[in-house]
Amino acid sequence: MKIIVDAFGGDNSPSSVIKGTVAALDAKKGFSVVLTGDEKTTRDLLTAENADFSRIEIIHAPEIITCEEAPATAVKAKKNSSIVKGFEALNTDPDAAGFVSCGSTGAVLTAAIMYTKRIGNIRRASLTPVLPTIKGGNVVLIDSGANPECTADMLLQFAKMGSVFAEAVLDIKTPRVAILSNGTEDLKGNTLVKEAFALIKEDASLNFIGQTEGRDIMSGNIDVVVSDGFSGNIALKSSEGVALGMFDIIKQNIMAGGLRAKIGYLFLKPALKKVAKTMDYNEKGGAVLLGLNKLIIKGHGASGDKAVKSAILQAVNYAESDLVGRITKAFIS
Amino acid sequence: MKIIVDAFGGDNSPSSVIKGTVAALDAKKGFSVVLTGDEKTTRDLLTAENADFSRIEIIHAPEIITCEEAPATAVKAKKNSSIVKGFEALNTDPDAAGFVSCGSTGAVLTAAIMYTKRIGNIRRASLTPVLPTIKGGNVVLIDSGANPECTADMLLQFAKMGSVFAEAVLDIKTPRVAILSNGTEDLKGNTLVKEAFALIKEDASLNFIGQTEGRDIMSGNIDVVVSDGFSGNIALKSSEGVALGMFDIIKQNIMAGGLRAKIGYLFLKPALKKVAKTMDYNEKGGAVLLGLNKLIIKGHGASGDKAVKSAILQAVNYAESDLVGRITKAFIS
Repeated sequence: MKIIVDAFGGDNSPSSVIKGTVAALDAKKGFSVVLTGDEKTTRDLLTAENADFSRIEIIHAPEIITCEEAPATAVKAKKNSSIVKGFEALNTDPDAAGFVSCGSTGAVLTAAIMYTKRIGNIRRASLTPVLPTIKGGNVVLIDSGANPECTADMLLQFAKMGSVFAEAVLDIKTPRVAILSNGTEDLKGNTLVKEAFALIKEDASLNFIGQTEGRDIMSGNIDVVVSDGFSGNIALKSSEGVALGMFDIIKQNIMAGGLRAKIGYLFLKPALKKVAKTMDYNEKGGAVLLGLNKLIIKGHGASGDKAVKSAILQAVNYAESDLVGRITKAFIS
Repeated sequence: MKIIVDAFGGDNSPSSVIKGTVAALDAKKGFSVVLTGDEKTTRDLLTAENADFSRIEIIHAPEIITCEEAPATAVKAKKNSSIVKGFEALNTDPDAAGFVSCGSTGAVLTAAIMYTKRIGNIRRASLTPVLPTIKGGNVVLIDSGANPECTADMLLQFAKMGSVFAEAVLDIKTPRVAILSNGTEDLKGNTLVKEAFALIKEDASLNFIGQTEGRDIMSGNIDVVVSDGFSGNIALKSSEGVALGMFDIIKQNIMAGGLRAKIGYLFLKPALKKVAKTMDYNEKGGAVLLGLNKLIIKGHGASGDKAVKSAILQAVNYAESDLVGRITKAFIS
């Protein structure tokens, strides 16, 4: 099994990607990595990390697509970019099981649409991260940003895909599915939510528990939160902002709290580190693009080597769980 | 100056409202409170708190509207409810400067539409809370839930109202206004955001700084975040969920961390309390309903006495700042 990895995607690439790749290979046997990017730079960085070249291939891709570029134009123009070369390898290498990129979300989405196929009657691919809950578990958010404009039947498909995903990779039996709304009562929601609510409610294959508010996303009482990509993105990034912001405020108060606070911090450090670990989406890897006939993981743009490692191991795990096959089975019956 | 207060609104009412009222009156001179609710219960609770009856009136309102009731039906049927009686007093008492309720948001919004008038050409009232930033300042979120369905010109009006509000009550000169979106690049957003972006950009009276992500709401780099009520509600409640969730996880880890963590917690307690205070929306009071010719503050349903106290003092403060007059001036020129 090979995982294709975009060596030149993300704010900290290529260094973080190379380190993350080496760490992922160290952590698990039974797979190899194909890196796309400038060959010499990639090889030099791998050598510096004492990488095991028997489990690594490099595909020369001298071009880079940045987040500042218009995705459609860049993907069409830069055929030798690390993203486009990655998708080519995903399509042509029979052992390729998945593609991981921390590069431009827009470019990865655009390339995914151009270079892979949607499964069956699935209308749109969705960007699907796994988030932590306060009970120590996981919750799936679908869609977190691929589709800013959605219809009710797209949300129904997200509900189904999310449910299969939670079963396949999080080992949750009959996942509890809720729709993100501005309240929990059945009559809440905008027009889209009201229409989607009626559709999802009718689907006997789903364990639909109704509407949920932003407040309850990480409560641990929901396994799959269904949303259009605009609202899902706002929920995801607001949560991220507060989590990072709170660590910032805690730090400020420790610094300003004198000796007492600093002593307290020393004692409390292991506990606070565990908190940081729970809240750190980097530990969870990236967001999978669900609905396509290939496995694609979009890592966070700010990913460090730990996040890259997580995303690669996540790709291996999802491939071993036959995620794409299980989504296919659910939609082509 | 009188502030009308719904004594029977909110999960912890009437007890929390009575305690909060007494605390607010203790904290500041120069205003009195009119409580609406069951007269005997209200009087007994006030007596138990040694309230200063020379600054308190009670309007008998034996009915209660719950959050479970359909707002429109309840507001029409329950003319003797604490909410409806509150709006009546707001309209008829010449000294009434504002109304505070922690009751059903839907019922307060419905009653506001029925019993007050919109200012000038303002199309819809918006629910507008003030949130903390990591820099220790404030940020205005408009709309946080009154209007799940919006048009671009409504968002332009929210931008203007939010800007006047930030100037009037937060003392911010030329407030930085941004529109909530799924990215920061100008080309991001759903159809509504794209349309509103174009409109707001053209308005020379605003200091418009472009699109913002959920992540940056509490960055301290924005003074007014403009949003439709659906997305705004999701941003607000997701943030709240993560803030509460993180305290929960910190607590769990302290409890599980043995003696070391507990000692650390004792030392760090003052610093962590300050963090909690910064993040606690209760300290900020409630959300003001902007765009109406009366001052209405909607407190959080879960408000305790401290939050009620904050909301009442906030009403006094907003009335003293002539918030309604300043919005009127901005929209009727």
